[in-house]
Amino acid sequence: MRPIGVFDSGVGGLTVVKELVRQLPHEDIVYFGDTARVPYGIKSKETVIRFSIENILFLLKQEVKLICVACNTVSSVALPMIKNHFKVPIVGVITPGVREAVYATQNKRIGVIGTRGTIRSRTYEFEIKQLDPTVKIITQACPLFVPFVEEGWLSGNVVLGVAKTYLKPLKDAHVDTVILGCTHYPILRPVIKEVLGKNVTLIDSAKQVAMEVKKILATEGLLNKGHRGKHRFYVSDNPEWFSGLAKRFLGETVRDVRKTNGV
Amino acid sequence: MRPIGVFDSGVGGLTVVKELVRQLPHEDIVYFGDTARVPYGIKSKETVIRFSIENILFLLKQEVKLICVACNTVSSVALPMIKNHFKVPIVGVITPGVREAVYATQNKRIGVIGTRGTIRSRTYEFEIKQLDPTVKIITQACPLFVPFVEEGWLSGNVVLGVAKTYLKPLKDAHVDTVILGCTHYPILRPVIKEVLGKNVTLIDSAKQVAMEVKKILATEGLLNKGHRGKHRFYVSDNPEWFSGLAKRFLGETVRDVRKTNGV
Repeated sequence: MRPIGVFDSGVGGLTVVKELVRQLPHEDIVYFGDTARVPYGIKSKETVIRFSIENILFLLKQEVKLICVACNTVSSVALPMIKNHFKVPIVGVITPGVREAVYATQNKRIGVIGTRGTIRSRTYEFEIKQLDPTVKIITQACPLFVPFVEEGWLSGNVVLGVAKTYLKPLKDAHVDTVILGCTHYPILRPVIKEVLGKNVTLIDSAKQVAMEVKKILATEGLLNKGHRGKHRFYVSDNPEWFSGLAKRFLGETVRDVRKTNGV
Repeated sequence: MRPIGVFDSGVGGLTVVKELVRQLPHEDIVYFGDTARVPYGIKSKETVIRFSIENILFLLKQEVKLICVACNTVSSVALPMIKNHFKVPIVGVITPGVREAVYATQNKRIGVIGTRGTIRSRTYEFEIKQLDPTVKIITQACPLFVPFVEEGWLSGNVVLGVAKTYLKPLKDAHVDTVILGCTHYPILRPVIKEVLGKNVTLIDSAKQVAMEVKKILATEGLLNKGHRGKHRFYVSDNPEWFSGLAKRFLGETVRDVRKTNGV
């Protein structure tokens, strides 16, 4: 009957929560968004690891039964290092997305877009190559996408211009599948689709992540049944800002966001 | 013989250091950039105050004789609250810029651009009205300018499109003077000039801030003489990233950036 813990540097992880709620309607969820230190994508590995451990300790205080890292930067930069330190199962967003992309590609050319931290870590390349060494991978950091999403500039010539610049190497390489390697990017799906064309498959890992969580809980006999899940939201800063943005990511309004200084 | 302390959320404060070095070549300077928690402009007043106090305590450990807050968000949001708590003289970037803008305007219409935090605080409006209650003030938050500068997108149609959108209300109001109320914005001066036209005066407070620092040190008998000033740079994360961006702000290369966890 314990809740699932989810954390992200800010609000982006709510795209994962949306899918968890859809697939696991009976589960309680505790979300933590580290809005006092957002963004993580521009920060060093060492710092992302330190922040992530603090976030995990906060969620463990809430007695969670599983932790879902709903942030690609943390999943790619910090998770390989810290996953084995904790008893609680920890699910990241990289492996599920990789699995779906390798399944989806026909021409064996996959593009990956993400924050600087995610791309620099080369975790996506490593995981794709493990599944299929013949796949050609083209990666591109798109650091301005997050501020555009958070500012709500989701369409129009300006954001289209940014997308065209960032995605040109992927277009030139004729990828047929692109991993949206940041939880903010699904919000820009229409713009990315417009630039890449309708024949390119866009992979958003949220669905696969929720399936993975469900599988682990089922295997461990930890699934909730019966009651409708309750969802609690904590942030380290700016609960009003978080509430305001939440609808864009979660598809529903979030009330009762609590501020905490974390651990 | 003690150094001047300067802090900012990140790298932007180097535009102020540049002017300090020009006007006070004999002074030692210790700079702290809080790159682990950057940016401050989107964060709450409470959090900006907490971070600022920690930064001041770090600089006091370096035995500084004066602290220059080279960040408009901190200067407008936190400084009015914390200035009186400390014995060390603390100089912000708001008042010097306001003084120059009120002096420069002919038609008594001043525009102010800055981060969300700076604009929301209404500190600029308050300070301008104190100097001249007849001035009409138009303010505009430009949250995407900072990421554009940090990504090095300083010209071209995309950043021009962003600037046109943000600056339209200022153009429509026929301001003849605009305060660049963020230490990043002087880097975008050519784009901002292109949108507003050459008859609008752009005020960058760095020059006036350095003059204010010089005046206080002279009054208190604390000016250094003789040797060429030494400059030390500390950051809470990513020293290489800081070094890479520093040249854009300081006009010269910064070597030997040290990482610290602050207080």
